[in-house]
Amino acid sequence: MPLFDKPLSELREYRPERDEQPDFDAFWQRTLAEAREHPLDAEFTPYDAALSLLDVFDVRYSGWGGHRIAGWFLVPAGTTEPLPTVVHYIGYNGGRGFPHDWLATAAAGYATFVMDTRGQGSAGTPGDTPDPVGGANAQTPGFMTRGVLDPDDYYYRRVYTDAVRAVEAAAGHPLVDEERIVVAGGSQGGGITQAVAALVPGLAGAMIDVPFLTGFRRATEIVDTMPYGEIVKYLAIHRDHEEQVFRTLSYFDGTNLAPRGTAPALYSVAMMDMTCPPSTVFASYNHYAGPKEIRVWTYNKHEGGQTFQTREQLRWLRDLFKNEG
Amino acid sequence: MPLFDKPLSELREYRPERDEQPDFDAFWQRTLAEAREHPLDAEFTPYDAALSLLDVFDVRYSGWGGHRIAGWFLVPAGTTEPLPTVVHYIGYNGGRGFPHDWLATAAAGYATFVMDTRGQGSAGTPGDTPDPVGGANAQTPGFMTRGVLDPDDYYYRRVYTDAVRAVEAAAGHPLVDEERIVVAGGSQGGGITQAVAALVPGLAGAMIDVPFLTGFRRATEIVDTMPYGEIVKYLAIHRDHEEQVFRTLSYFDGTNLAPRGTAPALYSVAMMDMTCPPSTVFASYNHYAGPKEIRVWTYNKHEGGQTFQTREQLRWLRDLFKNEG
Amino acid sequence: MPLFDKPLSELREYRPERDEQPDFDAFWQRTLAEAREHPLDAEFTPYDAALSLLDVFDVRYSGWGGHRIAGWFLVPAGTTEPLPTVVHYIGYNGGRGFPHDWLATAAAGYATFVMDTRGQGSAGTPGDTPDPVGGANAQTPGFMTRGVLDPDDYYYRRVYTDAVRAVEAAAGHPLVDEERIVVAGGSQGGGITQAVAALVPGLAGAMIDVPFLTGFRRATEIVDTMPYGEIVKYLAIHRDHEEQVFRTLSYFDGTNLAPRGTAPALYSVAMMDMTCPPSTVFASYNHYAGPKEIRVWTYNKHEGGQTFQTREQLRWLRDLFKNEG
Amino acid sequence: MPLFDKPLSELREYRPERDEQPDFDAFWQRTLAEAREHPLDAEFTPYDAALSLLDVFDVRYSGWGGHRIAGWFLVPAGTTEPLPTVVHYIGYNGGRGFPHDWLATAAAGYATFVMDTRGQGSAGTPGDTPDPVGGANAQTPGFMTRGVLDPDDYYYRRVYTDAVRAVEAAAGHPLVDEERIVVAGGSQGGGITQAVAALVPGLAGAMIDVPFLTGFRRATEIVDTMPYGEIVKYLAIHRDHEEQVFRTLSYFDGTNLAPRGTAPALYSVAMMDMTCPPSTVFASYNHYAGPKEIRVWTYNKHEGGQTFQTREQLRWLRDLFKNEG
Amino acid sequence: MPLFDKPLSELREYRPERDEQPDFDAFWQRTLAEAREHPLDAEFTPYDAALSLLDVFDVRYSGWGGHRIAGWFLVPAGTTEPLPTVVHYIGYNGGRGFPHDWLATAAAGYATFVMDTRGQGSAGTPGDTPDPVGGANAQTPGFMTRGVLDPDDYYYRRVYTDAVRAVEAAAGHPLVDEERIVVAGGSQGGGITQAVAALVPGLAGAMIDVPFLTGFRRATEIVDTMPYGEIVKYLAIHRDHEEQVFRTLSYFDGTNLAPRGTAPALYSVAMMDMTCPPSTVFASYNHYAGPKEIRVWTYNKHEGGQTFQTREQLRWLRDLFKNEG
Amino acid sequence: MPLFDKPLSELREYRPERDEQPDFDAFWQRTLAEAREHPLDAEFTPYDAALSLLDVFDVRYSGWGGHRIAGWFLVPAGTTEPLPTVVHYIGYNGGRGFPHDWLATAAAGYATFVMDTRGQGSAGTPGDTPDPVGGANAQTPGFMTRGVLDPDDYYYRRVYTDAVRAVEAAAGHPLVDEERIVVAGGSQGGGITQAVAALVPGLAGAMIDVPFLTGFRRATEIVDTMPYGEIVKYLAIHRDHEEQVFRTLSYFDGTNLAPRGTAPALYSVAMMDMTCPPSTVFASYNHYAGPKEIRVWTYNKHEGGQTFQTREQLRWLRDLFKNEG
Repeated sequence: MPLFDKPLSELREYRPERDEQPDFDAFWQRTLAEAREHPLDAEFTPYDAALSLLDVFDVRYSGWGGHRIAGWFLVPAGTTEPLPTVVHYIGYNGGRGFPHDWLATAAAGYATFVMDTRGQGSAGTPGDTPDPVGGANAQTPGFMTRGVLDPDDYYYRRVYTDAVRAVEAAAGHPLVDEERIVVAGGSQGGGITQAVAALVPGLAGAMIDVPFLTGFRRATEIVDTMPYGEIVKYLAIHRDHEEQVFRTLSYFDGTNLAPRGTAPALYSVAMMDMTCPPSTVFASYNHYAGPKEIRVWTYNKHEGGQTFQTREQLRWLRDLFKNEG
Repeated sequence: MPLFDKPLSELREYRPERDEQPDFDAFWQRTLAEAREHPLDAEFTPYDAALSLLDVFDVRYSGWGGHRIAGWFLVPAGTTEPLPTVVHYIGYNGGRGFPHDWLATAAAGYATFVMDTRGQGSAGTPGDTPDPVGGANAQTPGFMTRGVLDPDDYYYRRVYTDAVRAVEAAAGHPLVDEERIVVAGGSQGGGITQAVAALVPGLAGAMIDVPFLTGFRRATEIVDTMPYGEIVKYLAIHRDHEEQVFRTLSYFDGTNLAPRGTAPALYSVAMMDMTCPPSTVFASYNHYAGPKEIRVWTYNKHEGGQTFQTREQLRWLRDLFKNEG
Repeated sequence: MPLFDKPLSELREYRPERDEQPDFDAFWQRTLAEAREHPLDAEFTPYDAALSLLDVFDVRYSGWGGHRIAGWFLVPAGTTEPLPTVVHYIGYNGGRGFPHDWLATAAAGYATFVMDTRGQGSAGTPGDTPDPVGGANAQTPGFMTRGVLDPDDYYYRRVYTDAVRAVEAAAGHPLVDEERIVVAGGSQGGGITQAVAALVPGLAGAMIDVPFLTGFRRATEIVDTMPYGEIVKYLAIHRDHEEQVFRTLSYFDGTNLAPRGTAPALYSVAMMDMTCPPSTVFASYNHYAGPKEIRVWTYNKHEGGQTFQTREQLRWLRDLFKNEG
Repeated sequence: MPLFDKPLSELREYRPERDEQPDFDAFWQRTLAEAREHPLDAEFTPYDAALSLLDVFDVRYSGWGGHRIAGWFLVPAGTTEPLPTVVHYIGYNGGRGFPHDWLATAAAGYATFVMDTRGQGSAGTPGDTPDPVGGANAQTPGFMTRGVLDPDDYYYRRVYTDAVRAVEAAAGHPLVDEERIVVAGGSQGGGITQAVAALVPGLAGAMIDVPFLTGFRRATEIVDTMPYGEIVKYLAIHRDHEEQVFRTLSYFDGTNLAPRGTAPALYSVAMMDMTCPPSTVFASYNHYAGPKEIRVWTYNKHEGGQTFQTREQLRWLRDLFKNEG
Repeated sequence: MPLFDKPLSELREYRPERDEQPDFDAFWQRTLAEAREHPLDAEFTPYDAALSLLDVFDVRYSGWGGHRIAGWFLVPAGTTEPLPTVVHYIGYNGGRGFPHDWLATAAAGYATFVMDTRGQGSAGTPGDTPDPVGGANAQTPGFMTRGVLDPDDYYYRRVYTDAVRAVEAAAGHPLVDEERIVVAGGSQGGGITQAVAALVPGLAGAMIDVPFLTGFRRATEIVDTMPYGEIVKYLAIHRDHEEQVFRTLSYFDGTNLAPRGTAPALYSVAMMDMTCPPSTVFASYNHYAGPKEIRVWTYNKHEGGQTFQTREQLRWLRDLFKNEG
Repeated sequence: MPLFDKPLSELREYRPERDEQPDFDAFWQRTLAEAREHPLDAEFTPYDAALSLLDVFDVRYSGWGGHRIAGWFLVPAGTTEPLPTVVHYIGYNGGRGFPHDWLATAAAGYATFVMDTRGQGSAGTPGDTPDPVGGANAQTPGFMTRGVLDPDDYYYRRVYTDAVRAVEAAAGHPLVDEERIVVAGGSQGGGITQAVAALVPGLAGAMIDVPFLTGFRRATEIVDTMPYGEIVKYLAIHRDHEEQVFRTLSYFDGTNLAPRGTAPALYSVAMMDMTCPPSTVFASYNHYAGPKEIRVWTYNKHEGGQTFQTREQLRWLRDLFKNEG
């Protein structure tokens, strides 16, 4: 049934109970503090992308554990003043690709920073960033269960931390106006964006499309698609780890992160999305603590609004910075 | 078997017999002459795309039968001199989308013209151009068999003609350097590009990725994928129309058009492409009459080189215009 | 879940609100009046079908826009008196095939008239009737979205009109008793039959099997099968056309046509039919204004009662004409 | 690859070695002799099929083991003289259905006799004939491996025998001209027809469409479709029975039966048929000993010529009986 | 939706109305009495299984109709005293395989008896037992509809009887302690186990995993998987046999058998099991009349607890016999 | 086509050129030497498996990098003398499960040692061994491309080393006769076994079923199944890493390892195996340097001989040790 989840009228009011561990905030403070013990050491190397309207840089900076994370940085050719900036996070399995894959916000005149996702980058677009940390437990192929028995070992602890550090790396660049940084991403990128919105104060905005990594338990109960399905596959074998797994996931669940976000946010959701079901998206949206809007795409699956959503974003960004200016 | 077609060493030498009707050239001369009886009447309306680095225009011009064809035109903001220009054609079922879908060649500094495909534009990206001509025969859903019993009625007669007129519309714009027009496209867009390269003299170049619309008969015999499969579905029912259908298709087959192309060309092919099989691509590439190169992607299906091919194209374009300058 | 729709007890009472535009009747009066400006000009050409028990004719008559529509006409060999007559409409994508495809009602002794569906006839059985009208908008492959942005342009405006004219063409033949015409069809043919039952007064009966083209919006929400899925695919891309599309469809929706039908009707429905869901069938059945019966097939999908339903129909027809006689 | 089998030019010459056991003919003589020890006892009970142009009878007669086999018998209403007759056999899993399912040859004026297939009749159309004999070995679901370890126990021994007795039952009816009996069927029905053509002398003709049950070993090696795939599934488990199974099958293989057929035959084959691969069809066709023709359908799968083939058959039958008359 | 059935809290209370025929018990008394008219004649032939820790026997005994049923019997090498014993029944389509396929209860020190399933044994593991009884009606491929129109003819009448006789054959062996016999099986084997628990007094225990053959009607309405789907396929064709079929099945339905079982039972159920849906399992579990426990596997499909359930069983057996001792 | 690979007669002679790097042997000597710098430190902890015929131990020992690897060790209860021993390796994604999953060789009287596969163990059966080493490059989900850009970083360097150390851990146990150790496994386990046979001198035998990890390049060209397909997916994105990847893989390719194996070997291969194609199996089998036999399963896919192959192995082991004794 295409409209398989709750009806829209219910979703608008859907605020499920949150399941947070008492040390939730302490966990993240400790995590970020540890990461910051490594110098950020951001490098921006000019890169010949054959794009004459832009100045392009190949980026490296230190994320979780001091591991070097790759990225791109694009500004209009000849820029000399700090610009409003968009920091992009990437969907599951994808990598940073090439600079010409990131032109929309660049052509709109914003400084554009892209974070590669560690370990990923072998589907859709190539990535260049290894995850030098192995698993602390047997895992299902994919990234969802890597280290899933302990929040300290969990893969997304490293990724969310990399993402916070990406904002810091961007903010340190002279062409970035650190008061005007927007974070953005779809699917996994949307989940990361939501986490960053919770963990980084002072952001100018967040654009969160069809976010993944939110409402883990409900997702495993109502859809059997990947990547949430990696958790199901793991638990189908490790029948004795159910509570331990969901305890770990609670530290990374958008439902728990969203109430800590305060920057203006533009969400999107697709009503026929069986990858990131609408109720899991509204679970975090309805808990989000900042000013917020959501675009609802009725006849779409996980692709969501696609180019329509990009149009919405370009307009929303223009309004955001116009109003601020 | 992933490497399902001939081995690469054979493909490099594969030049199948062409099957051209005697009036092939006459047919196209007559077709274009008829189209040109309608005034081109190209309109370029400024469009607010929220892309501050570019000036963007919503285009309309008269294609086959004088029907109005939609498009986009993008130039670097503030351009005043004629630029080298890339005219883009679109893959099967897709439409012109929004201006932010066409940024690669624009960000590289070229004038960028996009032609919508009539009737299509309801998959991937939206289109705005109807095909007001109906079928002259019962047809299989899709566009491959619309009017397929007679070359005069065939759908691609209208599309190829629209594409020739697109070059004319671009060439007439004051910011386009008509000596430096390159045509480009992938899949159906690659097939159209190949046709335009054959039908329009004086082009600066052609970028033809994993082209469709070439080697029709062989394609129906070695793959059962869409859209070539639409022909198979049609012939599975209209068992009495086989020769008539392939006679029509011969006027539109890249194998017959390629030998009439003389501009420098950059092709690509994917060895595991079951949508546009490598032997059908080499069938036209090996017959192509101009200077040519081909990028071979070994482990790819119809996606071909994707962002890698874009990188190749940006470099090839830069070399092309550097050498010419 | 095989019994995916409402339970039968609810379906028997299910009468959803109708959503009719104020000019619904005016639209159809105007449409039919325009079509009748073209002379019907029905031709019945003797055809050698190698069926010695029947006299067979290849039919052509003018449907919507005066376009020539193909058909078959079969009567028992040597018939000289007007007969009760069945006019058949065809399922999606199918064509009129050959006379030996239409033997059930003919062998039962009725005059049998078959209408080809314009443009279709390239799946299952071949057709011979083009739809010379093109689209007024970009469309999804298939027929469901051809002209869907305006009721005047919509494909089924032409088809329903052809179908009304088919009854007129049959009625004009000397071997047809125009007081005893029954219309019949399954799936798309059932939807057309329902429309004809609403638009043509004085019919003797209607046999409507697992009808399509009824309850469009609900269908797009509860099943993702073709052909309703063509609308979903269209709206997934043309995200800005939702209301416009459903407004157009309301003129063609069986739920709105059924209340205008008054001839005795034999419906069928299948409880596991994911192509034409049972609630959409009951939506029109429960609104139907004439005497009516419905056969419910519990363990069937869209095939419905098949040969069992044919048996029901042959008996129902015999009773119908016996009672009338 | 749609054209997955040998090219047509090779197929026309393809005459594989036959693998016959020395007692092949003795086996069948003994089998039929045993069956004939049971009285045929054919019953023709008038049946109200609501088909006024035909007289219809529900048939029962004794097949293999004296088991009662169901059937239908249709003649033009009021027939008094013996007619040329077509005896039909049915495709895999199907049953005799209702009389209105068998109208083509009836409407063409031939007496029409239909044999139900024992045990089958639970897909497509219902059947009424049990197979009261159980298996002599563990079997794969389906009928292909029922009793497959011994020719005496094999399911098709019973079915072929029933089929021979069907001709005898038909021949005994006063409205059947026993000099003018044609046997016919497609797929499994085609395989049975081929067997009957080998085992019954004096037939007027045989119409054998896309026959199954021929070239068993090659079929298991080049396609993985059902029902040949039932043999593969069996051998995948019973790894120690391979030679025993193929020995049994050799008594039932069309390649061995065809050389024993002498009546004029009309075959058909489809070049993309992955259920009954073209090389297995040509294996028997090329060995067939009577006058023969074959219709080749290039772009078809197992559906073959469908309604086109019916047209061919009606014409071929008319010519057959015209020439004989 | 993975959790497609009722929620666990409802399932724990789910006790649907039973639908038993008045002669239910009489039917089974008569059936078993008839079977016992044939001498059991159990043979245990030493078998060289190359398993030095065990003594292994190839078993044959007379089941329903006196037909010889195959089995295995394993005891620790050199056993001389009667042992607690486990009698195993097998899942759908599987056969007894080889002795090394049945080592868990044997290595745990129990006498281990395995019953082959008549006719089956051609998937997963090979079987050696034919079902010499044929069908009394046309059937769907598979075993679910073999003889389904009459309880006396139904396939599972024979299988359940074989299973009762298996316990009798085991009990008669000098190394089996007939006071300490446990029956066991999963899926079809679980359904058979449940039947034996109802039909055989004095069992020491029953281990019933994800049982099949219970809640037939509900199963056909909520899942479309095999083997329940064989009933759906049958009824989709034999539309006139619905009540007759469900009447037959009521004699074999675990929901009606469970209330007659009194031995201690260990059940298992999987919440995402679409082959044997949880509500059909709880339907019988909640009606079961003996002491009982159930293991619930949340994230599993029909595989259920697999090796985890084996671990549960080995522990449950040890406790069972420890407590008894 | 089920028999998709070369015919058996060709396979028996198929000895493709090997592609070894000059430092192949040095690489492995260095690798093993490094591993042996960590003390083996094998621990055997008694484990209550509820299997009274066996003594069972939970094993831990240090594999590559000194990482602790889990395993099981089973001997007949009360064993006091060293036994011939079988060391088992596991198929892709599986884990060591529970002791009752490893009973065949144990019940045959051999000491049985099972090595868990690091990181795996989340499909089929659970595992307990993490791979604490992360990737040195972006990777495709799964284990095939983890560290694939450098032989030193490649995942299977660690696994093969663990496997060599497993033999050392077993050999050190007092109940293991180190002169009579056989290594065994299927699929990935077969590939590992082949590697161990090459890297460990003095083994008594090797049982290698349908081995994976051999003939990498050919495998990627003729099948598109997982897990070889992980390499294809990686190269489809990382189009620039093809040669580097195949260079790494050459150090781990069974084709290069087999010529270094000298112990008696029992192989198996399945002719319809699309996961580990027969030509890749014969590529290593034909290069294998010791006495060897191969069982060919004609109608099987990757399941190969299953329980039949177990029977072959139990007999082969008995003969092996009988001949030695």
